[in-house]
Amino acid sequence: MYKLNHITKHELSRVQEKITRELASEKIIQDIYEYIFQSEGKKTRALISLLASQSKKIKPLKRVQLASIIELLHTATLVHDDVVDQSNLRRGEKSVNQVWNNSYSVLMGDFIYSKAFMLMMKLDRPNILKELAEATNDIARGEIIQLNLFENYRNLSLNDLLKVSYLKTGRLFEAASKTGAMLANSSETEVRNFGLLGKTLGIAFQIQDDILDYDSLYKNTGKPALQDFQEGKITFPLFYALKHSAKDDKEFLLEHLGSKKLTKTMQNKVHSLVRSKMATQSAQILLDSYISKAKKILAKLNHHSCYIEMLNLVMFSNQRKS
Amino acid sequence: MYKLNHITKHELSRVQEKITRELASEKIIQDIYEYIFQSEGKKTRALISLLASQSKKIKPLKRVQLASIIELLHTATLVHDDVVDQSNLRRGEKSVNQVWNNSYSVLMGDFIYSKAFMLMMKLDRPNILKELAEATNDIARGEIIQLNLFENYRNLSLNDLLKVSYLKTGRLFEAASKTGAMLANSSETEVRNFGLLGKTLGIAFQIQDDILDYDSLYKNTGKPALQDFQEGKITFPLFYALKHSAKDDKEFLLEHLGSKKLTKTMQNKVHSLVRSKMATQSAQILLDSYISKAKKILAKLNHHSCYIEMLNLVMFSNQRKS
Repeated sequence: MYKLNHITKHELSRVQEKITRELASEKIIQDIYEYIFQSEGKKTRALISLLASQSKKIKPLKRVQLASIIELLHTATLVHDDVVDQSNLRRGEKSVNQVWNNSYSVLMGDFIYSKAFMLMMKLDRPNILKELAEATNDIARGEIIQLNLFENYRNLSLNDLLKVSYLKTGRLFEAASKTGAMLANSSETEVRNFGLLGKTLGIAFQIQDDILDYDSLYKNTGKPALQDFQEGKITFPLFYALKHSAKDDKEFLLEHLGSKKLTKTMQNKVHSLVRSKMATQSAQILLDSYISKAKKILAKLNHHSCYIEMLNLVMFSNQRKS
Repeated sequence: MYKLNHITKHELSRVQEKITRELASEKIIQDIYEYIFQSEGKKTRALISLLASQSKKIKPLKRVQLASIIELLHTATLVHDDVVDQSNLRRGEKSVNQVWNNSYSVLMGDFIYSKAFMLMMKLDRPNILKELAEATNDIARGEIIQLNLFENYRNLSLNDLLKVSYLKTGRLFEAASKTGAMLANSSETEVRNFGLLGKTLGIAFQIQDDILDYDSLYKNTGKPALQDFQEGKITFPLFYALKHSAKDDKEFLLEHLGSKKLTKTMQNKVHSLVRSKMATQSAQILLDSYISKAKKILAKLNHHSCYIEMLNLVMFSNQRKS
């Protein structure tokens, strides 16, 4: 885990408290809600918001509120993603659609989204609300584009993948960072830099996520092995593997992409093709380029109280294992 | 159709124009979006909003904006409902999950919800946004409660059904009417009365919807026959049929509730039990009680320019066939 000072750690735990206090009066909703939030995520987006909003002029309570809203928005997308991806596991636990069913997932996602918008009203900062409404729309847009791209995957370009990674992941990182700075009444330049930092970091996180999915066939990351491949997703490592593989291997990959019934031998072949030296190096170079870019943007914020913690977070994106 | 004056008719057509102009740049999103909005609904919620917001002091453009937002929120719930209910048809056309699939429905629902919140930001009326965020949350809450109730249907009470009907249907009618009055800067009393009118009318609409579902086995309402029954939903007519049926018939109904494989003979038996005199009368008495209540509330608004059109709408709820 990245190094955080004890104040930030405390604030992050208050985000968890705040979220789990947002209860409905009905038992069934309480049950699902508690189930969703019992397995704590890394809260990276909430953390970025807390860091970007650091300011002596803003009450910690307001900053925790904003970070909680962002974590709620993120959680709502996860609950819906489990339906979209037909996933069985989330953070090492059975997903809501497994314990209950798809209907509950769709409605609980809606419940959490609208709860986030209700909390935004309490913040009383229209510019923040606008940014978060747009980000929510962009996330849905990114996921629809992704679904559609994967149906026409033979013509997929690196730019397509980067666009989707920005919309589905980078966009909320960007909004978390930008609205944090907005809340702290930072200058326009600072808000812009925080936004750009979040966006770049978010894309780096997505690339690293994609790499981790092929990290090991026998891993312990809370997700099934080769999940992306079995869901038919072309991610950065697979994109490079397709680019660098011989014709037969390329056809093998495309033929089995999206199959949930891979034999052990097939799994091993997919894994070794995607983990080939050329493919691995290309994905790593892309990741490094986003991390250097993030560092460059962060250098412009070296006067900010969050600088060291944010730098730790950027450095960590290169090393994390889950 | 209810009688509307030509100005209201024109405003309602502007709602459709406004909604269909809210496009994304990506073709796939345009395609699904256009598909969803090509089959125009009755736009009852948008209409109520337009009526309640009538005022010489407010520009029609603003009122059309609010009505469009409400229609978008309603449409988003419909797109998600098709996943929840596993429906194949919506407004006589194949539903999005049939033409594309559940994943697209979940994400397009999210896209439309967040688009509605983006448009709310342009309205720049925090009290309206707050009401609509709460209504959206209540709708999801109502649908979750409904799902859960149907799993424990033997203990279902009339109050349970009324609560669910309020949350899933009445709540958006209430918000449409209330925020319309808010937009027109109506007095607190008027806002309250419009809210109450919307709520009452919404519950009446739901009761009538439920009755229509059993209206005919060979109907032309754009929905399959006995849809509610086959989806396992206990609605008002079925509730009364269960209450008034002999023990054997009651068991027959409960045993086949939720079955999608009813033979013609079974369908006829279900239909005749639910359309029995006692059950039909009870549902009609309940509907009438909500319509009289709506009329009483409306009487307090008889000075308002929308009075006649709203009265037509209330009267119509008793007679509509689709």
